[in-house]
Amino acid sequence: MLRVEEARDLILQRAPSRRVERLPLDQAFGLIVAEEVVAPEPLPPFPRSGMDGYAVRSAETLSATRDKPVVLPLAGVIPAGHPLRQPLPPGTCASIMTGGAVPDGADAVIRLEEVRVTADGIRIFRHVPEGENLAPIGEDVAEGQVVLRTGQKIRPAEVNLLAAIGVETVPIFMPPCVGILCTGDELVPPGASLGPGQIRNSNGPGLAALVRAAGCRPVDLGVAHDVTDVIAAAISHAKDCDLVLTTGGVSVGDFDVVREALTVLGAEQLFWRVAIKPGTPVCAAVLEGRLVIGLSGNPAAAIVNFDLLVRPLLDKLCGRARMGLRETVAVVDQPVLKSVPLTRFLRARVYLGPSGELRADTDMSQRAGVLSSMTLSNAYAVIPAQEGPLPAGTQVKVLLQEDADVSPC
Amino acid sequence: MLRVEEARDLILQRAPSRRVERLPLDQAFGLIVAEEVVAPEPLPPFPRSGMDGYAVRSAETLSATRDKPVVLPLAGVIPAGHPLRQPLPPGTCASIMTGGAVPDGADAVIRLEEVRVTADGIRIFRHVPEGENLAPIGEDVAEGQVVLRTGQKIRPAEVNLLAAIGVETVPIFMPPCVGILCTGDELVPPGASLGPGQIRNSNGPGLAALVRAAGCRPVDLGVAHDVTDVIAAAISHAKDCDLVLTTGGVSVGDFDVVREALTVLGAEQLFWRVAIKPGTPVCAAVLEGRLVIGLSGNPAAAIVNFDLLVRPLLDKLCGRARMGLRETVAVVDQPVLKSVPLTRFLRARVYLGPSGELRADTDMSQRAGVLSSMTLSNAYAVIPAQEGPLPAGTQVKVLLQEDADVSPC
Repeated sequence: MLRVEEARDLILQRAPSRRVERLPLDQAFGLIVAEEVVAPEPLPPFPRSGMDGYAVRSAETLSATRDKPVVLPLAGVIPAGHPLRQPLPPGTCASIMTGGAVPDGADAVIRLEEVRVTADGIRIFRHVPEGENLAPIGEDVAEGQVVLRTGQKIRPAEVNLLAAIGVETVPIFMPPCVGILCTGDELVPPGASLGPGQIRNSNGPGLAALVRAAGCRPVDLGVAHDVTDVIAAAISHAKDCDLVLTTGGVSVGDFDVVREALTVLGAEQLFWRVAIKPGTPVCAAVLEGRLVIGLSGNPAAAIVNFDLLVRPLLDKLCGRARMGLRETVAVVDQPVLKSVPLTRFLRARVYLGPSGELRADTDMSQRAGVLSSMTLSNAYAVIPAQEGPLPAGTQVKVLLQEDADVSPC
Repeated sequence: MLRVEEARDLILQRAPSRRVERLPLDQAFGLIVAEEVVAPEPLPPFPRSGMDGYAVRSAETLSATRDKPVVLPLAGVIPAGHPLRQPLPPGTCASIMTGGAVPDGADAVIRLEEVRVTADGIRIFRHVPEGENLAPIGEDVAEGQVVLRTGQKIRPAEVNLLAAIGVETVPIFMPPCVGILCTGDELVPPGASLGPGQIRNSNGPGLAALVRAAGCRPVDLGVAHDVTDVIAAAISHAKDCDLVLTTGGVSVGDFDVVREALTVLGAEQLFWRVAIKPGTPVCAAVLEGRLVIGLSGNPAAAIVNFDLLVRPLLDKLCGRARMGLRETVAVVDQPVLKSVPLTRFLRARVYLGPSGELRADTDMSQRAGVLSSMTLSNAYAVIPAQEGPLPAGTQVKVLLQEDADVSPC
């Protein structure tokens, strides 16, 4: 059976090419920059006062001391947004607010707390060095400077900076549309009441949430009964999806119709079955250049399939540097009793131990059919194939869920 | 001057009460559960087969061995969603698919790979213990069981579980609406061209992104000129916001009109000026029970104000356990040269050092007026008031931005 890394790489190799689009800043927020962004104008765009104070010529304050202040008559007032219309006359100063434009001629600003205002002018008691409290044009960003490189995320600070320099749209890697098709005669919509042998379609909403958590757009392809042609039609009609996920119908029984549907469609099979537990029955195929990944119908196993095989693909398509869950190590609280020929992904609650080390509590149901223990966990403890039994206290690799709030130590 | 912890606590003490609403699962995704959620029905709702195989009576396989198999005639086929209409007749077995309902009478499932199908029935070569490959009713979730506690986040696994047990809406803490009012005669909209002394309103989009990153809803209250009455009207009209943020107009100059506007409105002032650098000029007031927080107009300082004083409030209102940025420690790469009477929040790039320790690179502009270095940083290195100079290699507290992708070590 294929190892999980091999399966993941087969999928990544067949990833569709990334789509680059220019989006307005509010839509680009949270996404990854696809091309270098260059500043079209400098920031600040004029010599800007960093303080409330007085704009002066530095040279005219050279002789100022506590005992012999320099007195400069007030030539004007410069609120932010209201620059002087002419240069500062020699031998004068101007009152200026934070963010005001320092007038031509002036080359420094002294804070208002440091001067004394008198009838004949402003008394200054020390030399004000050139450039004091003054941000020259382009101090923050020079015109033509690269402000964002490919691969950077548009965070709030990036939004602020781009808005400041007049960049209104930004080229980003467009998150893919992910079609989600749930298969099974036993499925009824979440709102319906259950008949005998029926269960609710919980994988549909659950996978949509996983896709959204990965920053991508889920497309609901509905529920298909276990009929090969119905499933084949649903998959092949999802032309506006960048990839399609299915759940169920990938096991070994008579009614495992997703693989049959892919065969009928003439899709190229990449793999079927991966050496992981839970989630062994998972398949991937390529249909007209589009990836179709058939996840287990078992909710807990479907989540593991997604986290290990789909999440890295979505990260790649979104242009993220890290593909897949955050990886670190932790010490297991409980012994691992068995050795199995599959890599196990134990549900675990990773937490910061008393001496600052990360620990993994795996004392929760590990059964493939049990979903509730997924809500108790924030990570997987990874037990390699054939390893075990392991005593409590063994250090293992862990994969942290997106929301695992474990401070680095 | 107030310390940052004191200012934060003054704000938290006056936080409005949290609003609890019931939302459909897709809207509740990412939010925090406000009341215990109890399972209205068991999961699985019927005895469920965990494998493709054969449903049997365990007792009837007691004598089975490799040499002397038990032969059970096939009484039916049970795909998922298509249960038998009557109990399994004694002395027979039924073919059953993963997810199928184990019929009354049967109490175990043997995997199809382990049997041999012959003309006279299914040959079974070992005792199949009671319960094998069978999830009894409520194995995952018992009816009436608490499935979510107050304070838990609705992640994808929670969405899946709630959908599975027929819960369609969930009580959550409603993220607050945050009004954003930017003040300043110098501000023009991001799309406009700049006149002399003008800058673009970048704090509006930047703060909206910060509010969204904190999982809350920004409400654009526009740009107000530096006229007390205009600002007062804009603040007092924002009745559908849970709180209001302003930027600018909180310094010490003649045109610091936000504080004036709050005074005119008769708002109760909580504080003005906090001992932090950058971002000293920040104020908070309460107007008709609503918090108004006046941030610095300086973009870098406004971000620091938000991260230290607003973010904890938003986390509290959203019901999150952690209020404010993730805190940890790191070793500074560069010396801290000066000692100042304010707590400094140095922009820093925190990364995992060669021996697995967290390091903080602070080699970027720390000037309050410089925004571009915010885009180079993923954290703040916190230098307490009066501490310094500190040599390179000193361990300091760091606050990690939301997106700091630093694996715990």
